Amino acid sequence: MNPDISRERENASFNLEILTNILDGGAEKTRRRREIESLVISDPDFQHEDLNFLSRSERYDAAVRKSAQMILKLREYGISDPEEIYSYKSCVHRGRPEPLDLHLGMFLPTLLNQSSPAQLEAFFMPAWNLEIIGTYAQTEMGHGTHIRGLETTATYDPSTQEFVLNSPTISSIKWWPGGLGKTSNHAIVLAQLYTQGKCHGLHAFITPIRCMKTHMPLPGVVVGDIGPKFGFDEVDNGYLKLENVRIPRENMLMKYAKVEPDGTYVKPPSDKLTYGTMVFIRSMIVGESARALSKSCTIAIRYSAVRHQSELRPGEPEPQILDYQAQQYKLFPLLATAYAFHFVGQYMSKTYHRISGDINQGDFSELPELHALSAGLKAFTTWVANAGIEVCRMSCGGHGYSRCSSLPDIYVTFTPTCTYEGENTVMMLQTARYLVKSYKQARAGQQLTGIVSYLNEPQSRIQPHSVSSRPTVVNINDLASLVEAYKFRAAKLVEMAAKNLQAELQHSKSNEDAWNNNSIDLVRASDAHCHYVVVKLFAAKLSEIGDTAVHSVLSTLALLYALHGVALSSGDFLQAGLLTVPQLAQISQRLKGLLSELRPNAVALVDAFDYRDEMLNSTLGRYDGNVYEHMFEWAKRSPLNHTEVHESHHKYLKPLRSKL
Amino acid sequence: MNPDISRERENASFNLEILTNILDGGAEKTRRRREIESLVISDPDFQHEDLNFLSRSERYDAAVRKSAQMILKLREYGISDPEEIYSYKSCVHRGRPEPLDLHLGMFLPTLLNQSSPAQLEAFFMPAWNLEIIGTYAQTEMGHGTHIRGLETTATYDPSTQEFVLNSPTISSIKWWPGGLGKTSNHAIVLAQLYTQGKCHGLHAFITPIRCMKTHMPLPGVVVGDIGPKFGFDEVDNGYLKLENVRIPRENMLMKYAKVEPDGTYVKPPSDKLTYGTMVFIRSMIVGESARALSKSCTIAIRYSAVRHQSELRPGEPEPQILDYQAQQYKLFPLLATAYAFHFVGQYMSKTYHRISGDINQGDFSELPELHALSAGLKAFTTWVANAGIEVCRMSCGGHGYSRCSSLPDIYVTFTPTCTYEGENTVMMLQTARYLVKSYKQARAGQQLTGIVSYLNEPQSRIQPHSVSSRPTVVNINDLASLVEAYKFRAAKLVEMAAKNLQAELQHSKSNEDAWNNNSIDLVRASDAHCHYVVVKLFAAKLSEIGDTAVHSVLSTLALLYALHGVALSSGDFLQAGLLTVPQLAQISQRLKGLLSELRPNAVALVDAFDYRDEMLNSTLGRYDGNVYEHMFEWAKRSPLNHTEVHESHHKYLKPLRSKL
Repeated sequence: MNPDISRERENASFNLEILTNILDGGAEKTRRRREIESLVISDPDFQHEDLNFLSRSERYDAAVRKSAQMILKLREYGISDPEEIYSYKSCVHRGRPEPLDLHLGMFLPTLLNQSSPAQLEAFFMPAWNLEIIGTYAQTEMGHGTHIRGLETTATYDPSTQEFVLNSPTISSIKWWPGGLGKTSNHAIVLAQLYTQGKCHGLHAFITPIRCMKTHMPLPGVVVGDIGPKFGFDEVDNGYLKLENVRIPRENMLMKYAKVEPDGTYVKPPSDKLTYGTMVFIRSMIVGESARALSKSCTIAIRYSAVRHQSELRPGEPEPQILDYQAQQYKLFPLLATAYAFHFVGQYMSKTYHRISGDINQGDFSELPELHALSAGLKAFTTWVANAGIEVCRMSCGGHGYSRCSSLPDIYVTFTPTCTYEGENTVMMLQTARYLVKSYKQARAGQQLTGIVSYLNEPQSRIQPHSVSSRPTVVNINDLASLVEAYKFRAAKLVEMAAKNLQAELQHSKSNEDAWNNNSIDLVRASDAHCHYVVVKLFAAKLSEIGDTAVHSVLSTLALLYALHGVALSSGDFLQAGLLTVPQLAQISQRLKGLLSELRPNAVALVDAFDYRDEMLNSTLGRYDGNVYEHMFEWAKRSPLNHTEVHESHHKYLKPLRSKL
Repeated sequence: MNPDISRERENASFNLEILTNILDGGAEKTRRRREIESLVISDPDFQHEDLNFLSRSERYDAAVRKSAQMILKLREYGISDPEEIYSYKSCVHRGRPEPLDLHLGMFLPTLLNQSSPAQLEAFFMPAWNLEIIGTYAQTEMGHGTHIRGLETTATYDPSTQEFVLNSPTISSIKWWPGGLGKTSNHAIVLAQLYTQGKCHGLHAFITPIRCMKTHMPLPGVVVGDIGPKFGFDEVDNGYLKLENVRIPRENMLMKYAKVEPDGTYVKPPSDKLTYGTMVFIRSMIVGESARALSKSCTIAIRYSAVRHQSELRPGEPEPQILDYQAQQYKLFPLLATAYAFHFVGQYMSKTYHRISGDINQGDFSELPELHALSAGLKAFTTWVANAGIEVCRMSCGGHGYSRCSSLPDIYVTFTPTCTYEGENTVMMLQTARYLVKSYKQARAGQQLTGIVSYLNEPQSRIQPHSVSSRPTVVNINDLASLVEAYKFRAAKLVEMAAKNLQAELQHSKSNEDAWNNNSIDLVRASDAHCHYVVVKLFAAKLSEIGDTAVHSVLSTLALLYALHGVALSSGDFLQAGLLTVPQLAQISQRLKGLLSELRPNAVALVDAFDYRDEMLNSTLGRYDGNVYEHMFEWAKRSPLNHTEVHESHHKYLKPLRSKL
């Protein structure tokens, strides 16, 4: 054990295990998580060389091998709880996506939720037993988030009782679905349904794409891998072009909408039924933001504790880089953010489960709010985490660029969350739509409930005031007061956006133009709303914590999170009259103080995330701090070192001498 | 040609060629650049498959092949001007680094500049003819930017008149030098010189590391590749561990410092002699920031002109995504930034060449200012460009994640500039040191000259005022007034940092502690200083431009750049009393107006950067806008598509069926 990092641990002011239990959601959950991790990590079937040393084809091969093993073992151990399956899978693939993700996470659940009883009978068991391996083919080359624009067609032919599937344009080729390129023999294809000469919008069709015996593409199916990406090397994201592919009528998923044998279309009873999945996945992504950021902080903070560099005082030994204020200022606000997002993730997951009970009962009343919240928080947390990972990476100096740090892998694995499951800017604008609507309702005298209830308050309709004539509301040392300030800022920005929208309507040709011409303000309002929610939930979490020492350190983190956000957006708070100019300087000083307060607990706070070395897979982030030795050992295994002399020397460089 | 993108070009309000000439630094330079590009791009020896389809070893192999060809052709064509060599090399390797970079860019120049005549005689021609292939081995595992901390030792042994080189610790292993792992047979090793029992600090030693005949590592030399990184796949960044490696006394570079045969050390006449190279490289990086960002903007803006998505008005065709205000707000400020950085790059290059004449005459008077400026601007521009590339990538939706967009490659190739040649935060603090020193000189009554002369002005020593009691200085529609505002903001933040430093000295144990405890303020002051310089240089460039139409569109860009920066840091401007709260809302509205004004010229403004398709290598950024067809063609060539059925199907998935 590196002595620097041992010393850090001795200095911690709180009991690690208590905090880990809080993060896991209880001691029993911690125990079970560790049990599953041990099960996977000690399993010789899941050992493998560093994936960064392999070619793309080898990486895909290794991932398929492990996924196949995983299916067997999950059944052998009888692990069937979805959260536990997710845990097990994360361990097997060390947090990376894998080729069967869409089979397990989308194909099977969609079959379960949208099949008629006859379809369940026909398809579910073969899919459960991986005779049928499926994916969910929604996104096309030309359309992603805006799914109504999808172009693939499924035209019903009553003469044979078949649907004829086609990709009528280049841009209609299915593009991106995971596992589509090489792995799957079936796809649930989202297509515009045409029957009796009329288009009925998007419906889902179980489409065989490869032969069950030979795995060769079926006639009319052009399928393949979309090529290398920024990360996701283990996944065969694929393309699918359909040319008059005929499937039986029974292959349209018919639990809700139906097409009768004669081609008569039967509408689904409600269009909100598929809404829930989207909300669920976006809520899950908030948790992913927390995980990606907490892993990155773990690596960067542990490394900063063992890395010594430069001189603070002439003649003295080089200090740990964690002692530099500039380094603390990069990392500690991100550490606070990681904690904030963990708690927001817990809240979202809890809220989803609470509301999904209602949804199953046909009560959709809370869904719009949850939908708006999950869209905004998905965008807010992924953007922040995305940038934060890179700050962590760059805070490790040159070694952060090495694949052995794991930081490049964390980044490329995480960054797609900013785009998939709803492009972030589009998500922010969806949340803005809900906020503006709520604001108008409040102005019209309606009493709002839930998270937007702050728009009821008269303070939200702030008139322009000079700074001096309004009392300053913020007490910069009081978290509750800061939560209020975030609330008023959000209210102010929602109001500004709504008013600008109103004003724009005087000049614009249409509502839609006015909306577009105010997108900047609308995104800003959503962002402020989400920021308020995060600060509020962090503060609320503190009240649940009984342990004094843990409460104290988390309070410091929460204050840092809140004040750092005020400093970054100080213009907003000044503009809203929530802050005075002299307070800005006080905040700067207070922030420096908070960095010093957190310094002794920094390593313990990342230890509490409890990532095993095998999960972090980072030489810089090792628990024992023995960074350099392991970096050297890792480098020696690099494929370019398999021979002492690379063949290019003999092919190109040696012959060059005689030519010059 | 895609009709959307043709229409964009028809709408341009200015003559493209005039702007391209301005960016190149004259019509003749544009002509010659294009000539060199054609020479390379039409050369069958430089054709190659997309590197993203190759394994790391194949990529290295392909790069060595092209570099060897390049050496032959440069000599064949008689291209010898350094700028033209750089151009040619960039074309051959499409902007990527290559294995001979350090041989050409560091090893040969260092030999030229620091060898004694006898050493030149012995080493230069063999190196010129690539019998000796060398690298520059400075960075170690434990030390990068702080070079005084390097640990490698070179101990003089007068009995044999040799230096004995050693890597005494794990952290002293040379780590990162390009071309060190596999390519080079020599390295200029930076080591602490010990002679007659005394350490004389860092000196440079020509060290053979591989056999000139077999290319095998020499005795005592442990050398290899440091393993896969975030990008730089073509380069064998290497490690070098030296175990009692003996080299002749004549291998220490002895133009300045010397070790006599008996071991007597002779000091160099000045320690500023190697200072210039550092300044030169950092100035060059400013230009790299401009290039990386302008390439990214070209790709994102062209793609946004051909991509149609979503609905603005129900029933109407999907709009170009460039018509969305939110998309414009992401891309146009970055476009303006790319232009700003191009002009700053031109200024830095011109200033360097002007001053380097003086330096060669022994006049170092302007060097400290240039050193501070190049350090700060290197950090400022690389950070902004680094984040900007990712904004461009994510503005392309899902397809930005595909390697065929080229955006991931631009990012991973560029991001190391934030760390190499001086870690950015360290650079910002170096600039801050110069600013604080200058501020103190001004307060002591000294008249400052050059770029920091604004610290002379009494306004810089602003006392706290309430907003109402000071006249507002900013006219938000006037660039000159905005330049002034940036200047006062910088002056204010330098003053605040200097005062906080003074105050901190009351509590701190030492100057060094006080410095560290104010790093946040110091970095912020440097950042504001650099921002001021960029705005000022952009404004200054406008006055050189005669063509009315070009002047007009560049003025719009400059105003956008300046106002967008004010909006992002509005707290600073409010705090300094340079802006009133009502003006903030005016700025928001003005920004929206500027986005609309630029919209018709957006594609022309990126066309003016004049990147050939072969250089961009991006399906999304194609000049003809035929994005989707080429994306499909590209994907089909993906290595995973070389067979219809991947072997993993037979190995793992098919056997699974019988086990479940």
